[in-house]
Amino acid sequence: VSRGRPPPGEFELIAAFTRALPLRGEGLVLGPGDDAAILAPPAGEELCATVDAVEEGVHFDRRFTPFDVGWKALAVNLSDLAAMGARPLWALVALGVPAGTPAARLAGVARGLGACARRHGIAVAGGNVSRAPGLSVTVTVVGSVPRGRALRRQGARPGDAVLVSGTLGEAALGLERGARARFARRQRRPEPRLALGRALLGLASAAIDLSDGLVQDLGHLCQASGVGASVRLAELPLSPAYLAATAGRSDPWAPALSGGEDYELCVTVPVRKVRAALAAAARAGTPLAVVGTVTRARGVQVARPTGGRHPVGRGHDHLAALRRLAARRGAPLTSRPDNIGSIRP
Amino acid sequence: VSRGRPPPGEFELIAAFTRALPLRGEGLVLGPGDDAAILAPPAGEELCATVDAVEEGVHFDRRFTPFDVGWKALAVNLSDLAAMGARPLWALVALGVPAGTPAARLAGVARGLGACARRHGIAVAGGNVSRAPGLSVTVTVVGSVPRGRALRRQGARPGDAVLVSGTLGEAALGLERGARARFARRQRRPEPRLALGRALLGLASAAIDLSDGLVQDLGHLCQASGVGASVRLAELPLSPAYLAATAGRSDPWAPALSGGEDYELCVTVPVRKVRAALAAAARAGTPLAVVGTVTRARGVQVARPTGGRHPVGRGHDHLAALRRLAARRGAPLTSRPDNIGSIRP
Repeated sequence: VSRGRPPPGEFELIAAFTRALPLRGEGLVLGPGDDAAILAPPAGEELCATVDAVEEGVHFDRRFTPFDVGWKALAVNLSDLAAMGARPLWALVALGVPAGTPAARLAGVARGLGACARRHGIAVAGGNVSRAPGLSVTVTVVGSVPRGRALRRQGARPGDAVLVSGTLGEAALGLERGARARFARRQRRPEPRLALGRALLGLASAAIDLSDGLVQDLGHLCQASGVGASVRLAELPLSPAYLAATAGRSDPWAPALSGGEDYELCVTVPVRKVRAALAAAARAGTPLAVVGTVTRARGVQVARPTGGRHPVGRGHDHLAALRRLAARRGAPLTSRPDNIGSIRP
Repeated sequence: VSRGRPPPGEFELIAAFTRALPLRGEGLVLGPGDDAAILAPPAGEELCATVDAVEEGVHFDRRFTPFDVGWKALAVNLSDLAAMGARPLWALVALGVPAGTPAARLAGVARGLGACARRHGIAVAGGNVSRAPGLSVTVTVVGSVPRGRALRRQGARPGDAVLVSGTLGEAALGLERGARARFARRQRRPEPRLALGRALLGLASAAIDLSDGLVQDLGHLCQASGVGASVRLAELPLSPAYLAATAGRSDPWAPALSGGEDYELCVTVPVRKVRAALAAAARAGTPLAVVGTVTRARGVQVARPTGGRHPVGRGHDHLAALRRLAARRGAPLTSRPDNIGSIRP
């Protein structure tokens, strides 16, 4: 029960953190330094807002550099804005800092967060620094979207094509012991698909970002839309590196179908708009592949190229052992980078 | 390193939390349940946004009920909006939840947060639930204010009157062992002065909310405005209960001057507008008292009624021992409920 002026050394911690952050930007009338930030929302637009936290020992461990932690804390939130088709504007950052944290660690977190913010042209409008038992970074992001145009999970219709950006499964492989640098980077420095999300406004009928794996997240989209989906195993976008790393495994598809944390977009597109969506993705510089079809029948099924269904469990259960290994503290509780209600029963 | 579907029991935790929250409200186009909330900002207005966290063992202890924790987590943020003169609209809530937390505890936090939200007519637009080593509630609030009209810390001019709402010092007394229920309530269930803040738009030249004590927070306001202030000890608004509880103490003024957590507003008002400000406060139903004057000389001085200066240290240092007693874990790091930059050196 203490709010108060920090000891002198802790002013330095806070200074180390804020110095590396971009504190100015479009629509930011008044940034950090007052009781609240003042923001000028773009005329004629709606705003999209979401919050997500990364916690030491739950979402990251010592293999993450401080830069990785800061980058990822912002990137997973921006991925949610990408899934809405929103243009990101501002972030507010609440830090939980354990006693004895070196200023250099906070500076590293700030540099990673700042680098991700600059890459996407957003400003840190405010924040908070608080003593906490473990390092945590809780980020709220706000973006804008033309009124009534935001992409939602709801809206997929039977017959729509299911498309996925980029490649799948590499982030999950990045959790494995001795993972290739390429995979570790996918895990620690996700690249939110913001340009693609905006390019798909007016084309996609529904959208979600892939944080828990294709099967589970597509399942959320389908549930919100009152439909199902069939995914064709042969059409999953997999990198040569992924194929090489998983060759000979008992279930080489599991990381791609259920691994999670790819932060790619999964969208549905009416068939008559698929060519336009692929062209828009090409203009945005983002790979986009058709991987399946929306069905009237509920549930997500995965079709083998040889016929029949590929068995899929409850998403990332395939990787539960790996995740338990990675999570050093406590049982993982969900932290889907989406809005709280989606994880209600 | 785990994002994923929570075990079945944890769905219940999340449900217990979200059930008690108001999830609809003005301008909330799409609430929890998608990748992000969709918000329609009021036309012609700017937005004010801030984030603040309350952490177990730092900002609250076992004397706080879960209801208190939820109430206070939101109220301290709303107090920041009050200091801007903003009308609160939406909140996003990130929960950190230790393993083994009973659903009833989260439900209690949600009831407190929900009660405070309903009292002020705001909706919970989104959130996040994450495993964490200690219980924490990080709230981001967004409000609106007519364009260009927000109150800031900057703007006080020499000669302006200094005014304070309500009464001072009771929240600090509420931290003491065996505190009267009245004081404990001030500590655990602060009432943000939202109506007053709005009533003072166009009247106050500068404003701040009192989280760290009058001397320190008025000091922040003065620093931002490039001025100083003289406070008259005899005019501090103190309750009869406060006067009774502090009678005979070596420094009976310390809790009022430096105790913190009153969450009253401190504003400066040009002399020609003081009558109008007092009338506006009366219409808003909030006590408001003139306590001093803005000076050209920097720093905050406290004048004794008998002449001479009352010595004031560095704010809440007077209460450092009490705070150390109250904080059960780690040294307190600042968590001023304001925007991160204000606590830069």
